[in-house]
Amino acid sequence: MSPLRTVGAAKAVRPCLASCRVASPRGFSSAGAVRPAAAKPFVAGEPNGPSLKTKSIPGPESTRIVKELSQVFDTRSFNMLANYPNSIGNYIADPDGNVLLDVYAQIASIPVGYNNPTLRQVAQSPEMVDALINRPALGNFPSHTWAALLKSGVLKVAPKGLSHVYTAMAGSDANEIAYKAAFMYRRQLERGGPDVEFAPEEIESAMRNQAPGSPQLSILSFKSGFHGRLFGSLSTTRSKPIHKLDIPAFDWPQATFPQLKYPLDQHVAENEKIEQASIDEVEHLIKTWHMPPAAVVVEPIQSEGGDNHASPSFFRKLRAVTRKHKVLLIVDEVQTGVGATGKFWAHDHWNLDDSPDMVTFSKKAQAAGYYYRSKDMRPNMPYRQFNTWMGDPAKALIFRGIISEIERHDLVANTARVGDYLYGKLEGLSQRFPDHLQNLRGKGQGTFIAFDNPKRDEFLKKAKTFGINIGGSGASAVRLRPMLIFQEHHADILIEALEKIIKAL
Amino acid sequence: MSPLRTVGAAKAVRPCLASCRVASPRGFSSAGAVRPAAAKPFVAGEPNGPSLKTKSIPGPESTRIVKELSQVFDTRSFNMLANYPNSIGNYIADPDGNVLLDVYAQIASIPVGYNNPTLRQVAQSPEMVDALINRPALGNFPSHTWAALLKSGVLKVAPKGLSHVYTAMAGSDANEIAYKAAFMYRRQLERGGPDVEFAPEEIESAMRNQAPGSPQLSILSFKSGFHGRLFGSLSTTRSKPIHKLDIPAFDWPQATFPQLKYPLDQHVAENEKIEQASIDEVEHLIKTWHMPPAAVVVEPIQSEGGDNHASPSFFRKLRAVTRKHKVLLIVDEVQTGVGATGKFWAHDHWNLDDSPDMVTFSKKAQAAGYYYRSKDMRPNMPYRQFNTWMGDPAKALIFRGIISEIERHDLVANTARVGDYLYGKLEGLSQRFPDHLQNLRGKGQGTFIAFDNPKRDEFLKKAKTFGINIGGSGASAVRLRPMLIFQEHHADILIEALEKIIKAL
Repeated sequence: MSPLRTVGAAKAVRPCLASCRVASPRGFSSAGAVRPAAAKPFVAGEPNGPSLKTKSIPGPESTRIVKELSQVFDTRSFNMLANYPNSIGNYIADPDGNVLLDVYAQIASIPVGYNNPTLRQVAQSPEMVDALINRPALGNFPSHTWAALLKSGVLKVAPKGLSHVYTAMAGSDANEIAYKAAFMYRRQLERGGPDVEFAPEEIESAMRNQAPGSPQLSILSFKSGFHGRLFGSLSTTRSKPIHKLDIPAFDWPQATFPQLKYPLDQHVAENEKIEQASIDEVEHLIKTWHMPPAAVVVEPIQSEGGDNHASPSFFRKLRAVTRKHKVLLIVDEVQTGVGATGKFWAHDHWNLDDSPDMVTFSKKAQAAGYYYRSKDMRPNMPYRQFNTWMGDPAKALIFRGIISEIERHDLVANTARVGDYLYGKLEGLSQRFPDHLQNLRGKGQGTFIAFDNPKRDEFLKKAKTFGINIGGSGASAVRLRPMLIFQEHHADILIEALEKIIKAL
Repeated sequence: MSPLRTVGAAKAVRPCLASCRVASPRGFSSAGAVRPAAAKPFVAGEPNGPSLKTKSIPGPESTRIVKELSQVFDTRSFNMLANYPNSIGNYIADPDGNVLLDVYAQIASIPVGYNNPTLRQVAQSPEMVDALINRPALGNFPSHTWAALLKSGVLKVAPKGLSHVYTAMAGSDANEIAYKAAFMYRRQLERGGPDVEFAPEEIESAMRNQAPGSPQLSILSFKSGFHGRLFGSLSTTRSKPIHKLDIPAFDWPQATFPQLKYPLDQHVAENEKIEQASIDEVEHLIKTWHMPPAAVVVEPIQSEGGDNHASPSFFRKLRAVTRKHKVLLIVDEVQTGVGATGKFWAHDHWNLDDSPDMVTFSKKAQAAGYYYRSKDMRPNMPYRQFNTWMGDPAKALIFRGIISEIERHDLVANTARVGDYLYGKLEGLSQRFPDHLQNLRGKGQGTFIAFDNPKRDEFLKKAKTFGINIGGSGASAVRLRPMLIFQEHHADILIEALEKIIKAL
């Protein structure tokens, strides 16, 4: 554990729960203000704030180690080297002794803090040892405890209306197996039901990768969407050329994602038109694309693509238009899921009458897969949706631990509240520095907040020198992806640092 | 741990090493013979043999649990329910108290036995706890210990000539990122080198999934090959229609894999012609296919597709023809790798002058990824081969533990020797029951042995009633995939059971 000076362990302050909303008014300007007393952190042992030991990051020790690593592993996308045993809660440490407030959190994939003691217990449990050393082929030889593990973990937080799950390994393959399910479902409809046998021509042509066995069907996705980087998922990813160049892709359709004006509440009528045009385009593509879509895949907030939002009304219309044309709706919650938007699933904000057909998850869940409605969405025969491992009980155990930690501390409510607090502070900052915080967005979406900065890449780099680890998305967005254990006092530290970064740009 | 009666723990027999070859002559008929004294098992606590408690498998308790599981998880491909804490070494237990000799080993993915004590230590180590609760985005925030972990584990067993690695999550995505590397490498060659910039037309068209940005290139694979079930890997998989039906696929070429006559040493001249025809077809496809192949992917032994073998000479020719046409050679060692063929990598049998360009691994490694030659095979810019996790240090730790266990007990040599012993016994059996053990194959390939049986599916089912868990491949093959800790006395038990199965069919 970190030898750093700590708060929380020593102080007997109660965790900041619902009452803090009053104590921490929105729009509170941090400049020169006295910080409110820090609440007890959810992970004991956190430092009071960032601390920097070297003039720049990476420091000499990190530089030496990265050089060694680059001999055998591609390190050109390296951001900073981490010393994980010394990291704690919201703080990431490096081998040079620097400690940064981490609002990027391993690309939005650490939910309850570094070295979380609840997860430590899970990692040390006999069940975990068993899962690690006796890894099952879950489709063939599930453990006698697998049903209970699913029900007490992954399925305990299943989105409304989706009570079944296929587990997978990561976000990309979670999306791809959802796509496969959609194709099989579509062809079954076309064929006339689950009991209609494959035609000899289908069986023969599938082995040659030709229609009708390998059908000319598609998945419809949105411009600037991101759904992963394997061949099927990458065909639906439209984030950046660097993600796609030189990789063969399916000729699948893309609709324009609404490019809304922010703040959303000041451009309602205008944005509604933009959203309707997008829905119309979706319907047009469904009706006319030469490879008909079996499903539409959409992120509740386009995350890699630049933190692009749309309204609940847009998504309700999308649900309606997909239902109308018997096209499945897959909601990709790989980055938005597990609490970050102030609801457990971001699509909970939409108040759908009719749930999505599938919801994919990964990242903060550490486990991965897709939830689905009912048994009739399973392929009609065994071994059609199958692979050796079909997920990983070790990660399902971690997810269960994360869920228990979220429940114990009411971390989704925490994130909603702290998000509102942080958004208010950022609004104040954007009024003072409008050129540096453009298109502030994510109001009411927990800590899933972003803004555009014209010198974004420099901004991100400079942040490290003020003790903040922060990421970007799209062309110019600074994206905030704090953990669910991010509190008001962390927000204050972040706001102070953002002001310093802006002034140093 | 299992409360079963055990051998090994009580007996002080030395492990059966090189000297056993003499003590266990090939072709020894098990019928009515006295078994040689059992050697000490590599995992202490193994039972003397299988033991069955219920009339059939699944028994009542398994049936009850599977019914419950099927409410939320697809169990139609279920083979048997396992009680992993009660499983030990080569033996898998179920919740009804049945204990079977497991020569399927989680579809060939358990290398050193259930509840291996060395792996248990790894699973309980502080490094493992750290890896589980602080999972890094390896491309951005590698741990300061990642280089050392790679060098002492994954890279310690790197195939000759391939000193670099990209890590992944499972076999399918290991193959797909290798394919992506091949496409980027190919386009870089066509473009004129790593410093030539992308053309605006490439950048623009890639975002529309169109050429030239999304190039009309392919991966050439072999008929009856298996390389995974995501969209790119499935386009190279040609095993069974059930794997491919209803899933869109790329129009990529397939060459005929040599369909050799067994035993190989009795059909040398004939087989050589068959292999040459296959090489000629590969060259023809490389020269003429409308989407030129950037790489050829091949399994050393086609594993899912029916245990189809080819000679070292075939693979040397394949290396030559790919080199000649500047097409990369990807060897898919997902199932054959990590010792099962009596060499650490199956392609070590080929004596290549010129190593493959990439070798993919997963399954018995528990970790996954691809090895490659040199830095010039990395994409020319960062973030081209990238995803959130890029592998999993927890699995890299397990792989390191597996490697240490293999070294400690010389398990690759064990597998070579026991494989020869087992093959000899099977030859004897095939002479007595030629209709039931057709096309026996895998001589000199460790325990990677298979034979055809006309009632294969019944054979596999019947095996459970004689205490054996065994799998199939292709249309009619019984495939043996014992663990690396499989010994002569396990082979004897297996042979006795096979005879009983045959007689009961």
